[in-house]
This record gives sequence, C-alpha cells and structure tokens, in this order.
Amino acid sequence: MTVTLTSTTTSDDVVRTPSARGPVAPSRGTLQPLRLDQVAVTGGPWGRRQDVNADATLAHVEHWLEREGWLGNFDATAAGASGADRAGREFADSETYKLLEAMAWEHGRTGDAELDARLQAIVARVAAAQAPDGYLSTAFGRPGTPDRWTDLEWGHELYCLGHLFQAGVARARTAGPDLLLQVCTRAADLVCDVFGPGGIESVCGHPEIEPALVELYRVTGERRYLEQARLFLERRGHQVLSEIEFGRSYFQDDEPIRDAEVLRGHAVRATYLSSGAVDLAVETGDDELLAAVVRQWDATVARRTYLTGGMGSRHQDEAFGEDFVLPPDRAYSETCAGIGSVQLAWRLLLAQGDPRYADLIERTLYNVVDAGPSASGTAFFYTNTLHQRVLGTVPDPDQAVPRAASSLRAPWFAVSCCPTNVARTFASLQTLLATTDDEGVQVHQYAPATLTADLPGDRRMAVRVVTDYPRSGRVEVVVDEAPGTPVTLTLRVPSWAVGATLSDGGTTSPVAPGSAAVTRVFAAGDVVRLDLPVAPRFTVADGRIDAVRGTVAVERGPQVLCVESVDLPGRVHVDELVVDTSQPPVEVDGEVQVQGWLRPHADAAWPYGTPGEPAPAASTPTQPVRLAPYADWAERGPTTMRVFLPAASTTAPATTTPQEA
Amino acid sequence: MTVTLTSTTTSDDVVRTPSARGPVAPSRGTLQPLRLDQVAVTGGPWGRRQDVNADATLAHVEHWLEREGWLGNFDATAAGASGADRAGREFADSETYKLLEAMAWEHGRTGDAELDARLQAIVARVAAAQAPDGYLSTAFGRPGTPDRWTDLEWGHELYCLGHLFQAGVARARTAGPDLLLQVCTRAADLVCDVFGPGGIESVCGHPEIEPALVELYRVTGERRYLEQARLFLERRGHQVLSEIEFGRSYFQDDEPIRDAEVLRGHAVRATYLSSGAVDLAVETGDDELLAAVVRQWDATVARRTYLTGGMGSRHQDEAFGEDFVLPPDRAYSETCAGIGSVQLAWRLLLAQGDPRYADLIERTLYNVVDAGPSASGTAFFYTNTLHQRVLGTVPDPDQAVPRAASSLRAPWFAVSCCPTNVARTFASLQTLLATTDDEGVQVHQYAPATLTADLPGDRRMAVRVVTDYPRSGRVEVVVDEAPGTPVTLTLRVPSWAVGATLSDGGTTSPVAPGSAAVTRVFAAGDVVRLDLPVAPRFTVADGRIDAVRGTVAVERGPQVLCVESVDLPGRVHVDELVVDTSQPPVEVDGEVQVQGWLRPHADAAWPYGTPGEPAPAASTPTQPVRLAPYADWAERGPTTMRVFLPAASTTAPATTTPQEA
Repeated sequence: MTVTLTSTTTSDDVVRTPSARGPVAPSRGTLQPLRLDQVAVTGGPWGRRQDVNADATLAHVEHWLEREGWLGNFDATAAGASGADRAGREFADSETYKLLEAMAWEHGRTGDAELDARLQAIVARVAAAQAPDGYLSTAFGRPGTPDRWTDLEWGHELYCLGHLFQAGVARARTAGPDLLLQVCTRAADLVCDVFGPGGIESVCGHPEIEPALVELYRVTGERRYLEQARLFLERRGHQVLSEIEFGRSYFQDDEPIRDAEVLRGHAVRATYLSSGAVDLAVETGDDELLAAVVRQWDATVARRTYLTGGMGSRHQDEAFGEDFVLPPDRAYSETCAGIGSVQLAWRLLLAQGDPRYADLIERTLYNVVDAGPSASGTAFFYTNTLHQRVLGTVPDPDQAVPRAASSLRAPWFAVSCCPTNVARTFASLQTLLATTDDEGVQVHQYAPATLTADLPGDRRMAVRVVTDYPRSGRVEVVVDEAPGTPVTLTLRVPSWAVGATLSDGGTTSPVAPGSAAVTRVFAAGDVVRLDLPVAPRFTVADGRIDAVRGTVAVERGPQVLCVESVDLPGRVHVDELVVDTSQPPVEVDGEVQVQGWLRPHADAAWPYGTPGEPAPAASTPTQPVRLAPYADWAERGPTTMRVFLPAASTTAPATTTPQEA
Repeated sequence: MTVTLTSTTTSDDVVRTPSARGPVAPSRGTLQPLRLDQVAVTGGPWGRRQDVNADATLAHVEHWLEREGWLGNFDATAAGASGADRAGREFADSETYKLLEAMAWEHGRTGDAELDARLQAIVARVAAAQAPDGYLSTAFGRPGTPDRWTDLEWGHELYCLGHLFQAGVARARTAGPDLLLQVCTRAADLVCDVFGPGGIESVCGHPEIEPALVELYRVTGERRYLEQARLFLERRGHQVLSEIEFGRSYFQDDEPIRDAEVLRGHAVRATYLSSGAVDLAVETGDDELLAAVVRQWDATVARRTYLTGGMGSRHQDEAFGEDFVLPPDRAYSETCAGIGSVQLAWRLLLAQGDPRYADLIERTLYNVVDAGPSASGTAFFYTNTLHQRVLGTVPDPDQAVPRAASSLRAPWFAVSCCPTNVARTFASLQTLLATTDDEGVQVHQYAPATLTADLPGDRRMAVRVVTDYPRSGRVEVVVDEAPGTPVTLTLRVPSWAVGATLSDGGTTSPVAPGSAAVTRVFAAGDVVRLDLPVAPRFTVADGRIDAVRGTVAVERGPQVLCVESVDLPGRVHVDELVVDTSQPPVEVDGEVQVQGWLRPHADAAWPYGTPGEPAPAASTPTQPVRLAPYADWAERGPTTMRVFLPAASTTAPATTTPQEA
C-alpha cells in the first residue's frame, strides 16, 4: 500500500494542493481526525474490505452504472438529447457521484494512476452535462424532463448535487483542485443564487446537500456555502415541503431540528441531515444546535436502534419506527442508514470525544456496513433483516433486482444507493481509526494499522497497531516514533468489554468500559497492550422492545452472531430452535455454540388458545447449535436465519392448547 | 322496521321482479342463504349498527363523495369535460358504486322511499357518464386522462366496474331491473368483448370484477359473464401483469390460484379474488378450485391472521406478511380486508357448511368490522392496529386525512375505501345470521332477530332469536311457526365456548364447540336455549408468532378486549403494564379486570445488555386494571392501547443490566 499524499500546511481557504484531509474536516472540535497520509489499515478484516473494494467493488459499480445507462444519462444531457427515455430513477446521478467520491478516496489512499484516469474520464462526462449557468442534472431542466426545481419533495436535484460536492471535496483533498471542483463550485454558486436570500425558500426532500455544502466551504473557504447550508437547515421543519402520504416527518420537515427530540422519518435522510447539523454547529460555534443533535442521538440509540446498530424498522417509508418498535423480521436497517449513522457518530465523536460514539461506529461497521456487501464485494443487501423466515432464491448475478428487500445479496438494484455508499465508506475507512488532540493520540477502532499524529510543538507520535481483533481481544500498540515529552495514548474500551485489562511496562490493570489512557514519555519499541474479553455472551433486550421479548441474542466481541439453518442438523428451519439459557455460549475450536432444543411445530387450526402447561423442555437433552457472525449470513446460499433466539425459560406461550381446531 | 320485499319465485335467469336475494346467491351449496324478506335483525349491537348506518353513515358518505368531487367526476365525464382536474384517486368511482350498493341493500331492508330517490339520483349521474359503447370510468378514456385499459396494474378500471356490478346486483335483487342494471350489463358486455377470447389477455391489478361478474350472471343468467369471470381467474398467476416493486404477489399474479398454498400479497385483493374463485367453483361445479381456496384459507387462518380476525400485517403494500409475522404494533388489518375475509368465509360457509367459517365471520365482525367505524358511524379507522404506542391527535372532522394509519378515527381518507365498504356490509348484515337446507335452519350468528325458512314440501319454519349476546351468553330461539314434521334447528357453538350447554324441553346438555342440533317436530312457542360461557379468559398465541411471545390477551365471548391508557391510574402509558397471569381475569359490575403491575421504565443508554435477575414482580402488590372491547377503543380521545399484555412470568428480559451506559 502506498500513501501518496504528503502533509501540507496549505490552508483549506485557498486550495492549491491536496490537503490530505479525509471525509469530515472540522475546523474545531475536541478531537481532530488524522490526515490520509497519517493513517493506514495494514491488514485484518478491514484491510480485506479495503482491498476488495479497490479490486472488485469500484469496477463492479462502474460496470453497472454504464450498463444501466446511468452514466450515459450525462452524455445524453451533454448532447442536448431528450430526457424522455432517460435511464434510472430521478436520483440516479448520485450513484455516479458516489462512485467518483469512492474513486477519489481510493486514489488518495493508494495513488492508483489507472484509477485516477478512470475517475477523470467520468468527470469529463459529468462536466460536459453541466449547463452554462452551473445547473447539473440529467433528470430535470432539459427537453423531455420536468423543469428545474419543480419537484423538491421527490426530485432529488439538490440531493444529487450534495453527492457531487462530496465527490469534489474528496478529489480536492486527495488530488487538489481540478475540473471536478470547478463543476462543484459552479453548481454550488447557482444553488446559492436560487435558494439563497430572496430565492426559493425551500429545501430538498432528501437532505444531503447540507453536510456537503459545509464540507465544500471547508475546502474552498467560500462562506456563502456555509450560509446556504444554514438556510437549508433552518428552513426544514417549518412545513416548507408539501404534505405527503408518509407525513412530513418522512423528510424531517415536521419539526425544526433544534426542537426535535429524536430521529424520525426516513432513516437515511435523518442521519444525513443530522450530520449536516453537526457540521454547521461546529463551524459556527452553535452549541445549542449541537446539543439538539446530541439529545436526538441519545434518544435514538436508547429507543430506536437495532442490536446491530441498524436504524429504520419500517419498510413502508424506510423510516424509524416509534420508540422500541424494532421487529427483527421486518427490520429495514438499510445499509445506507448504517453508513449515515456512522457519519453522524463520527462527527459527534470529533466534536465531543465521547467514546460512546465510537462504540456505535464499531457496532454499526461490524454488523450493518459489513453485512451489506458480500465477501466478494460484488453483491449487496439493501436492507439488513435480523430474522429471515423464508428460504430465498439466488438472485441472477446479471440482473438488477427491483426491490430493496431480498433474501440474498444482489448485484444491483433499481434504487442502488447502497453499493456506491459502501464503496465510498470502505475507500476512506481508515480515517475512522484514530484521532489526535493536543495531548496525544486516541485509538477508537482496532485493526492492524499505522498511525501518525502531529502534536503541538512540532512533536510527532507514530505507532503501529498489531492485532487480529476481533478474532482475538488482544490489541498491541507499538510505538515507532515518539517525542521526548509526555504523550497521552488513549484506547477505547468497548462498552461490552467488562473485564478488560491494560498492560504497560510490565504492569497489567483492569480498565472499565469507556477509555483507558496512558500518559508518559514513550520511546520507540514501547508496547501498550489492551486485552478485551471477546468470549461469546448472551444479550437480552429492554423489555419494551416487544418484538424480542423472551429471546436472547449472542454476541462475541463487537460482532452480533446469528443462527442459520444451513448450520442446523437436517437444515431445519431456525424457528424450530429454543435456546437453553442456563448453559452459556461457548467457543469450541473457534466456533461459537449454544445449547438448545430443535422442536418441530404443528399447526393448529387457530393459533390462539388458552394458556397450557409449559413445555417440559428441561427434561429433554439439548444439542449444540452453531452461531456465526451476522455480517456473514447468507454467504452460503438460501437459508433461514435469526439473531434473537427464543429462550427456554420463556417458552410457555408455545405450548398453547389450541381451542379452535 | 319494514321488510318491503315479498318472496318471489321468479327465476334469476329472467329478471323482472326483485328476487329478495342478499349478497351472494349461489345456485348450489351445502347451505342456502335466507332471502332479505326472511331475516331481520331486531336489536342488539348489530341492530344499532344497522340503524346508525341508515341514519348517519349513508348520508355521511354521500356528503363526502359530493364534497370531494368524486360524484362530480361523473357529471364532468357526462359533459365531455377534460379529466385533467379530475378529483380523487384513480379508483374514486368505486366509492360511489359501493355507496349505491349500500343504499340498495338498505332500501331493500327498510323500503325507505327517500333513500330510493337519492339512489336513483346518483344512478342518473353515473348513467350519464357511460359512453355509448358501455365504457364507464371517470379516470380513463376521456380528454385529459389516459387511454382505456392502458394501466391494468394500477388503473382499477375493471375493479371499479366490479363494484358497479355489485351495486347493480343489489339493486336488481331489491328493486328489480332498472337503469342501474342496464348500465351494468352494457359495461359487462363491453368487458366481455374487450377481455374475452381473442381480446386483451390480462386482468385487473385489483381483483373485484371476478365475484361481481359471477353475481351479475346469477342475476341476469348471462353465461358470458360467468365465462369472463373464469377467464380472469384462470389468467391471473401467469405473470400477465408487469413486475412491480412489491412483486407480483401483490396482485396475486405470482401463482395460479389453483396452485397457491396460502393467501398472500395485498390482503383486500387476495380475499376478493378468493371470493370470486369460490363463486366460480360453486357455479361450475369446480371442486378442485374450491379445494384450492379452502386449503389457502386454512393456512391463512392458521398462520397469517390476527387474534381479531384481522388480515394483513404489512403497511408497505397493505399485504399479508409471511407466516406468523403478526406484529400488533404494525398490524395493518385493514377494515376492508376484514370485510373481504367475511365475504370469503361466508361463501365457504354456504359451500361447505363448516362452522369454523362462521367462527371467523363472528370474530372478524366483532373485532375488525365493528372496530373500523366510530359508534356515531361518521368516523373510521382504515387500519386497525392492535397496539397504539403514541397518543394521537384528534383528526379534524372537516378534513380528509391523507394516510391510512391514524391513531383516531377520521371522517374521510384520500383513499376512502373503508367507509363505503362498511356501509354496504352493515346494510346487508342480517343476511349473515342464518341459513337453511333441506333439513332445517342453521343459526350462525347471535343477535335479536326474526328468521324464516322455506323448507322442501312447502313447509315453513319461523323463529325469533332472543338474546342480549354478547353481554350475556344466553341465546333463546323461540319458535313462531313450524311445520308438523321434523325440522333440524342447528346452533353454532363458537370455538372458544368450551362448557356451553343446550336446553330443550326441560333438558340441559353439554355441547362441544362446533354445532349443536335439535331435530324434532317443533311447535309455536317452543324454546331452544343455548348458554355460551362468555366469562373473560386469557388467550396466548402460538410460539411462532414472535411478536407476542411472553404476552397474554384477554377475550370475553367473541370479543377481544384491550387496555387503554385512559383507563389506567394516572393515565400512564399502557406499556408500563405487566399482567399477573396467576390471577385470571374477572368481571366486576360488568367490567372486566385483570391484576397487574404498573412499572415505569427508565431508559438505558443502550437498550441491550446481559441477562439480569428476574424482577421481583410477585413481591409487590398487584392492582386491578380495566379492559374494554377492542372494537370500542379510541372512542374516548387520544389513548395508548394494547391487546397483547406482557405477562409476569415472562418479564425476565425486562430486567436487563444495561452495559453500554
């Protein structure tokens, strides 16, 4: 792996050379991200994800964008052709922009010249489609399409531009200002003209341009962009969009973001919007706005988040459900919402430094973002159910599927937001590992990695992280370079890691969940070791989550596990399993097992009746049942699957005496 | 109440005078429905429903149809005006037709001349909109609208005509052939021309015309209509409609009806289609088709039906969920799907005579159809949730609501299928009470009523049903007129009525759920008495219904009960309640009570953690908690509500030790 970028001291206010900043570069905050040339993942599961993304996913996405005609839409627009037979949905442009962003981060990570050429070729096609006044869309404003800005509720014009800006930001930070940034600023200037003071007093039905404008401001120093982000954020919630069947909460236009108590509506929209609010709050010192987002995040995590970190329990509107409505079998848990949640938590972590944000990032990366794509990086879940009841059918690898929910990963979707979102996330994944502040370095996520931080006073700290986490709970931080002055090395202790220990200089001490810090003068070769208890454990849910009452889940380290029918004797349906919770999960030859009973069910004519005697479960012998990481499910063909397993002590309702037979 | 119709012996093959048949008049079957002049509800809850329907709902519906411009659509079509500003959704015509059907049944029930005049005034407006070739739609085929038959998936043209035909059938049976029947046959002839052999080989995205064509055949004797119904039924399932986001199962075009194993897809569509299949099977002697529907009905009732009888657990596509996916809080349970289920079960009851069909009719009438409308008959639930988590807001009584799901009953909806469906169902409700066969009379539903049956050999049996069921479980059948030969009087014993007794001639005997029959020579004044145990009881669900594991429901007679927060001390949220299942429900001064604990919950930062000790629920005193009929919920303003109540013996998961705080 080659890190091509060199650190620069160029102000972002005047972009001349790449800043090597990653996604999200706040000008203030408790913690500062490392630059792209200061952090690299060097192996392990996340290293594999980055390699597969580079080797397979980027080309896969480019292939499908071309094949489906979504790239061709730009050529047609440039040629002045009619949009009557335009390909794809109204937001298809955004997939090209997310691919460009992914390519930019990947090029910044590895310096791949061939990738750079492919990126520039796409940028040229996009740039050719831009109107002289800066407008850019293949779905509006040309012959055969609706007029510009005539469908703010559903048209996604500003949403698409938001993704364009994020691509331009990525390119500017990794390669310096070029054609893509010019395209962005011309479009952004138009947006400010049209939607600024005295212009259209409305917002886009899908938030995204808000964080993008703040990031574009960070790259260009153009305060108009920051101000336009503020206008968009302040307008929303005042019913500036039309009433729709799902209600205005769908696009967070029901209530101003300063007043809301919890995330609601469309989960991707909600997390993107909140990310923009954090960006704005940080850049403008708006502590009230930041506190509002934190309050909503707290309530959302406490009441509206799946064990996996997944967000969104409603298929109908891809939305958050009400508090504690978290059904495993109808989990929507869109991959993109997981990515949005990571983006939001990362911003909050930088702003406030609290390790709980990094906890949710880890949980979501391992159990949502990693669950979405196949190991091959060329097939994807759009939704991430926690309970698959029906054996699926293998999708045609040469056919886009029309539906978001599928029982096996598919190569492409009619709405294909997730593959491109995964690509840009993995291409910049290393930036989530660690941060710095005036005192030292904070390691938030554990993977084999190299980390360097510039500290005040021209000091420099460089470490290597050596680990095979999460297979093992041992994490060693080896110092490669250290100043001769005290530095604080902070290691996150995940919330589940009760019983963790920290070893330094021959001393081992217990450390509580939260953070463990060592402050001293380090020398090259020093090793600080964190030992996290990753043994499998039972997990139960708050009693208010009705959908999982009387069940247990099994977790191991940061990973949520699941049972798949492909692993059950006779491949019986997972719903035949009842777990004996008196026997804790164990690990045998690297395989997690619980003890349980497999009980075939017979139908009653009517499935409700008077309570009967509890089944004599304890009197029959249990058998071992294998669990595997949830993120890997459905990699071995059609299977039923569940995360929350009925527990033996609560099976009384299964023994009804059916009356109406 | 005046029953205006006199029994006629006119063959339905040549319609000259009203036949006094009710909805569904099969030419063969195990049981035969009574004629409209042979059955009347004379009081009780169903009598009140019929009165309110006549006094309030019909006028309410007519008012809203006029006000929303849905009636005006016919005038505009008749005038040749552009449809560009047509009011309402593409299926709005059907609401007018359902109102006409309701008015026809109501006029047939009471002979209300003013109602008859109103009906005829609407018919005149509808008839004026019919094209010379018989085509009738305000949404297609005129200037400013799409061409005829260009959107079979979503256009609802044939669906609307199906409701037109059902209105025409009701009118012909209650008033004889008049303009409305002429409109119907002209339209039906066109449908046969266009969709018959050699025509468009497709079907409507929303089944409805199938049962309607069979009923129109029954009224007119025109076999082309029966044959067209057969064509529509046989074509569906062979992917004759386009693929849609919800999948072809949405409109049952995934699989031929002869092959399917269970009802699936959109619940109203599925029950209407199955109803048509039973009609066709009965008229053509197609036992294989009938058996296919029965098989699907059995599986649907065993695996996909709510305790209330409600069908459809998915908001996204108003569809059946997978087996055992029956979440109370996201129950869709559309009122119209309940009505469709009653229509289907009634047809199966007539065809096969099995009391289990009448069981489901009773359950669904009491707990879905009766739950939909308010006591006033002027506000409606579209969906019927079994768990209301959030206090709602009172809908504006002067404003249609855009969404199907609402926390309180609303006067009208953008999609307003339910009010008109309720109206036609209540206007003909009495026809569901009883049937006849060669041996005697079968009473299926218990309400104060008069019933008369013509038996072979010019014999006649007339009885009165005296009861205040379901308040009391006592049902007395008093003989008013009997032949001097043996007659069998059959009374349904509901499936839940374990311990029922039958008294006749001074003898009381236990009777098991199913049917209790008395065969003897009856005399005027004889009384047969059924005593049903309506005391409240706990009910639990099949263990595979994950969403209600560890809970109990309370039922009383045919009624499902619920807890509302308006009845809880301090009006706390219903989710604070845990029921002590060791103390059975009791009835105190006519009020059903359980004993339980009300326990406020505190949020954890993360709602998942390691299993803790069970809460010491048993050590704290319980308090009585009132339950009320589910059908009456939300009549007293905003409230939280639940049917399935967490049970004390299964509250261990509520006592998590939150880790990630």
